[in-house]
Amino acid sequence: MAKSCNVALIGQKFMGRAHSNAWGQVARFFDLPVQPVLHTIAARDLEDLQPFADRFGWRRATGNWKEIARDPEIDLVDIGTPNDLHAQQSLAMLEAGKHVACEKPLAGSLKDARVMRDAAKKAKGKTFVWFNYRRCPAVALAHQLVKAGKIGNVLHVRARYLQSWGGPAAPRVWRFEKKRAGSGAHGDLNAHIVDMARFLTGDEVAEVNGAISKTFIKERPMPDGRGKGKSDVDDAVLFLATFKKGAIASFEATRLAHGHQNRNTIELNGDKGSLSFDFEDMNVLNYIDATEDPKVCGWRRIMCTSAGNHPYAEAWWPDAHVIGYEHGFTNMAADILRAIGRKKPEVPLPDFADAYETQRVLEAALLSAKQRSAIKLSQVK
Amino acid sequence: MAKSCNVALIGQKFMGRAHSNAWGQVARFFDLPVQPVLHTIAARDLEDLQPFADRFGWRRATGNWKEIARDPEIDLVDIGTPNDLHAQQSLAMLEAGKHVACEKPLAGSLKDARVMRDAAKKAKGKTFVWFNYRRCPAVALAHQLVKAGKIGNVLHVRARYLQSWGGPAAPRVWRFEKKRAGSGAHGDLNAHIVDMARFLTGDEVAEVNGAISKTFIKERPMPDGRGKGKSDVDDAVLFLATFKKGAIASFEATRLAHGHQNRNTIELNGDKGSLSFDFEDMNVLNYIDATEDPKVCGWRRIMCTSAGNHPYAEAWWPDAHVIGYEHGFTNMAADILRAIGRKKPEVPLPDFADAYETQRVLEAALLSAKQRSAIKLSQVK
Amino acid sequence: MAKSCNVALIGQKFMGRAHSNAWGQVARFFDLPVQPVLHTIAARDLEDLQPFADRFGWRRATGNWKEIARDPEIDLVDIGTPNDLHAQQSLAMLEAGKHVACEKPLAGSLKDARVMRDAAKKAKGKTFVWFNYRRCPAVALAHQLVKAGKIGNVLHVRARYLQSWGGPAAPRVWRFEKKRAGSGAHGDLNAHIVDMARFLTGDEVAEVNGAISKTFIKERPMPDGRGKGKSDVDDAVLFLATFKKGAIASFEATRLAHGHQNRNTIELNGDKGSLSFDFEDMNVLNYIDATEDPKVCGWRRIMCTSAGNHPYAEAWWPDAHVIGYEHGFTNMAADILRAIGRKKPEVPLPDFADAYETQRVLEAALLSAKQRSAIKLSQVK
Amino acid sequence: MAKSCNVALIGQKFMGRAHSNAWGQVARFFDLPVQPVLHTIAARDLEDLQPFADRFGWRRATGNWKEIARDPEIDLVDIGTPNDLHAQQSLAMLEAGKHVACEKPLAGSLKDARVMRDAAKKAKGKTFVWFNYRRCPAVALAHQLVKAGKIGNVLHVRARYLQSWGGPAAPRVWRFEKKRAGSGAHGDLNAHIVDMARFLTGDEVAEVNGAISKTFIKERPMPDGRGKGKSDVDDAVLFLATFKKGAIASFEATRLAHGHQNRNTIELNGDKGSLSFDFEDMNVLNYIDATEDPKVCGWRRIMCTSAGNHPYAEAWWPDAHVIGYEHGFTNMAADILRAIGRKKPEVPLPDFADAYETQRVLEAALLSAKQRSAIKLSQVK
Repeated sequence: MAKSCNVALIGQKFMGRAHSNAWGQVARFFDLPVQPVLHTIAARDLEDLQPFADRFGWRRATGNWKEIARDPEIDLVDIGTPNDLHAQQSLAMLEAGKHVACEKPLAGSLKDARVMRDAAKKAKGKTFVWFNYRRCPAVALAHQLVKAGKIGNVLHVRARYLQSWGGPAAPRVWRFEKKRAGSGAHGDLNAHIVDMARFLTGDEVAEVNGAISKTFIKERPMPDGRGKGKSDVDDAVLFLATFKKGAIASFEATRLAHGHQNRNTIELNGDKGSLSFDFEDMNVLNYIDATEDPKVCGWRRIMCTSAGNHPYAEAWWPDAHVIGYEHGFTNMAADILRAIGRKKPEVPLPDFADAYETQRVLEAALLSAKQRSAIKLSQVK
Repeated sequence: MAKSCNVALIGQKFMGRAHSNAWGQVARFFDLPVQPVLHTIAARDLEDLQPFADRFGWRRATGNWKEIARDPEIDLVDIGTPNDLHAQQSLAMLEAGKHVACEKPLAGSLKDARVMRDAAKKAKGKTFVWFNYRRCPAVALAHQLVKAGKIGNVLHVRARYLQSWGGPAAPRVWRFEKKRAGSGAHGDLNAHIVDMARFLTGDEVAEVNGAISKTFIKERPMPDGRGKGKSDVDDAVLFLATFKKGAIASFEATRLAHGHQNRNTIELNGDKGSLSFDFEDMNVLNYIDATEDPKVCGWRRIMCTSAGNHPYAEAWWPDAHVIGYEHGFTNMAADILRAIGRKKPEVPLPDFADAYETQRVLEAALLSAKQRSAIKLSQVK
Repeated sequence: MAKSCNVALIGQKFMGRAHSNAWGQVARFFDLPVQPVLHTIAARDLEDLQPFADRFGWRRATGNWKEIARDPEIDLVDIGTPNDLHAQQSLAMLEAGKHVACEKPLAGSLKDARVMRDAAKKAKGKTFVWFNYRRCPAVALAHQLVKAGKIGNVLHVRARYLQSWGGPAAPRVWRFEKKRAGSGAHGDLNAHIVDMARFLTGDEVAEVNGAISKTFIKERPMPDGRGKGKSDVDDAVLFLATFKKGAIASFEATRLAHGHQNRNTIELNGDKGSLSFDFEDMNVLNYIDATEDPKVCGWRRIMCTSAGNHPYAEAWWPDAHVIGYEHGFTNMAADILRAIGRKKPEVPLPDFADAYETQRVLEAALLSAKQRSAIKLSQVK
Repeated sequence: MAKSCNVALIGQKFMGRAHSNAWGQVARFFDLPVQPVLHTIAARDLEDLQPFADRFGWRRATGNWKEIARDPEIDLVDIGTPNDLHAQQSLAMLEAGKHVACEKPLAGSLKDARVMRDAAKKAKGKTFVWFNYRRCPAVALAHQLVKAGKIGNVLHVRARYLQSWGGPAAPRVWRFEKKRAGSGAHGDLNAHIVDMARFLTGDEVAEVNGAISKTFIKERPMPDGRGKGKSDVDDAVLFLATFKKGAIASFEATRLAHGHQNRNTIELNGDKGSLSFDFEDMNVLNYIDATEDPKVCGWRRIMCTSAGNHPYAEAWWPDAHVIGYEHGFTNMAADILRAIGRKKPEVPLPDFADAYETQRVLEAALLSAKQRSAIKLSQVK
């Protein structure tokens, strides 16, 4: 009989909802070596928490996340809290011998991230970081194609994560507080595309060649409607980078690009072909094989929904019966449970050590913007 | 405290899975006047059924669907079986006083459909038909825009439902047997786009002006691998039609259009603007307002994910965190539960009487193809 | 030394301009066996004619087109007049031993078209019909790919020519008079897509299976601003057809589809792949090869501008330095001059006999709409 | 009677052809205050020159460009030679009192550019620089919309010019020699998008925040087939910049991006909306008005071909009868002739002073790449 895995979740907001859904759906659609049990959910706002727990089927709700560390029944702790809490909570759980799946970015600061990486190295439990976009079938397919040499050596990486919700009317929630969020669009959005770039190229950034960090809107209305509060995080961060094997790259994250709501895009140009992905058309991977007959050569629009051919497709629906945002999380939950059950995930899972490398790149970009100079990654540890 | 609604489902194949998921997800994402309980699932293949029931959380599984009619606890019966069973099962459930939600097309024959419509008229329970595409937010929004007069009088309707899985290697499952399926691409795919055309225009077909029904592939390998069997349904049906208020329309369904996997598209041209939808890009509605400044007039690509602005969007994720195929069913489950709880659905729900009108159009198209002449809808009853 | 070909043109409106440009440009961009000389232009409005002739470099202008027939210097006569004049003018020129290039549709009536075909059969001069879209590189490439078997047997043809300029404010020019134009959108637009369908499939229509001809707007403002005049041509014609080798097809032409200004589109689905073209993105051919690895199979967007690989590309600019509408005419002028100089055109040129076949299909569609029945092409001669 | 303008052209390669065509076509399609006369063409390769001159209608051909300076009949000199010749030739012509239209980039070096700017300041003749993309109707429309405040304050500029012809097999023509070309993709392609960014924003770059200049391919086959030669220009240059009014920008030029052949794209995000352009779909401008009803808000695809509504459209064909690459040059020729005839061009024309500002930005980017630091534009003169 299949083993089970008792899961605890901390957080009940946007990510709490996405993760709860993933844990609830994963066993319905995937054949798993280990069955998840929605054991405990923890969050501060107890009034909201019980209905939330009932809705998503969590067996138990608590206002004190530390109880989770103490509960021997719990195998895996999923952390979906603001960035400044990741380190403290992860460390507690790793010390308690749990597996830990932490939301991205790994932490609000490089120092926190380093501590987490070090703790993970010594821990018994496995660690995971919710870079969910790796598990969009199109992105996972791109990873496989690059690895199979389909685009040859990578020359260019072009990554953008553009949103538009951050206008002057957006309330001053924690995401706009440096103290809690660490950064703005940078940690929220560039974290994803740096991870994707590393995941897709299989390469590491050697140098950040220049950067801009910009706060366009310096104060925002408080969520309670009482006046305005300081917004001290970036609204947008752009940077240029060079990879170890020579690819040159540009990255951009912003919350102020009208017409783009969740435009997470990445393109790779290799010496044999190119790949491009746009989350707003998430079921599709664009690919061009530059080695084929020029008469019929062109960008191919691959609908990544073919069971047996495309990652994760077998779990879901027939061809072009497309999937959505939340499926990236469910696909990741499946891979986490496979990893815990000693099976191979569909594509590599990021752990704390891996996410720490992403964090270094983010830090180097901030340094570059501040110092108005290029920064070698070897300087950032 | 919220009332509950005990749901029973017949069927565990493709639609059984889509409906089970919808009943399981709906209360997690919607605030409902009535809470669904996954009470009983019935299907013939008992060996597969119990694991399926466990996976999706059905409390009870049975090999005999008639038990459902006899069970006084059950409020709503969801029928996800092949078309030739819809009438018998629906009638039994309506006679037993249940609400019935039946898969589309309403039936495999017009005669069955008529009997179902008549039974529904006299029944205590409500009836629903799973024309799920009405509940893609983009399609629901299109309905609202037409109703609000945004495109003026409708002149043209252009509807296609193109798939490509039906090549000569596709096995001779029930869908290729006329006796069981009634028709091929016609009932399977044209049913959807005829419903959508009626739903979006708010108008009814007056005449079918010509039609082609074509079976390209006349025999197929049997599913058990033993030889070939006759395929006696259409692979493609095209027809032209005129609506009562004067719009002229074309419809096409095929399973043999490479490059289209689930290309359910519809476009309306009115005298003030146009709307178009393509399921393979399901979160988007294309709209052009022909009355605005020609300097900046153009097709608008509306990402239908804005909570408070677009149908169903509030239930799901932030802007452009797109939804997928299955959400159409979950959105419909929400509207069915609202209707049962005497609340208004987001957009009108098709009942048996409504689906019977769609069936008449399908029948008129087949007659037109056979008789090589135009057919007035008034001749088809 | 290169021979020259003295060209005369009748007409100075829209087509007069497009043809004049083609004759002026062709020798600049193509290496030709025969050099065109812009010898004479004829048109009724003499006041406008001389400046027009000067502008485009016509050596001589005349108000009497019959002079052209009498002028022994002239080799090729290009007819760009309203449809009701095609027969009379073509016959006069063929009798005078000239080559004739006539605008499409071949004629305003089938009877005229038949007379023209018969005259061409007996004439010494060559005939050509300006189905310019055949010479968009993407369409010519599609022709070559179908011929090379790349999409296998053709199963479906889907052709639309949608425009939107024909609203109630459009003045009652000759295009809205049945007497002069023969028909409305049908002869103007369906003529093109019937020609393209025949050209691309290499097959002929066996039957029209049904049709709708609709005049939405029955009177229009007169061009001189004095009151309204009757508009007695169709605004839209839709029809279904079956090709001899079994492909099934739909055609639609309209002047009332907001959002489409010159949307001339055609798609072919074969048993090995598909091709689609949309004039509004005219440099691109979409192609899917359904026989390749499903992991990377998808619609390819082929930019048809590669010299040496794509038809006509060598004459123009580097890759993706795209060409426009008028280039179809220039490319056709090049092929006409090649034909006259006994060289092979890039792809086959339509002559009067060929265009007569298109005219038969148009006639069958009108009959089908009128008689409310299918019409075998063998009935239309 | 209309005045005439005697034009001389230096160069007969790619640009020679594009410019010759423009001077030949402009009077056919535009009503001009001054009529161009194709007076003299000069180029080194006399064997090729005479046939070229005949083909495009140049009255006279010479192997010595200096004769042009001495010829009092010539009014306007068009320079289409490699970058290292621009300064010498421009100066000679300005000294001779001619108007000068020079290909972009203004020069191969900032020093040359400065000398040219200074000469222009003192000259009697007008100067123009062939930044042809300003005269794509979509780009000109974007300029007008920004100027009219339609997108509000510009926050982001995202410009890319991606080509793919520069692989290792591309021969070592002058474009790969630093001595002659000054730079590679940078001067060739970034020049265009820096000009477009300045033109569209109406703002100037204050600082380059970081840059990468990369030569991937260090030697290439010689055009004569004899061995390999050194390629010492950049294959790609990326840089980040800040505009004076605060907008932040990224620029990228490359010749090594498979899937992009002439992908000149620019996007602007303002606080009220966004605009984007892609040359490979050159007739279209994408625009989103973020202030309108979110229910129907979306990117609008504006087909910029409407006479009376869109720049230059009146000169050409009906709606969506699209234009191509060469029309940008013809539109520019029209505006140059208007300027010479003291009429207003459709949108502002770049002169040497204007192009010098673009050159400063290019220089700052190279400095930034070299010095691995941010560079204030005030440092570059």
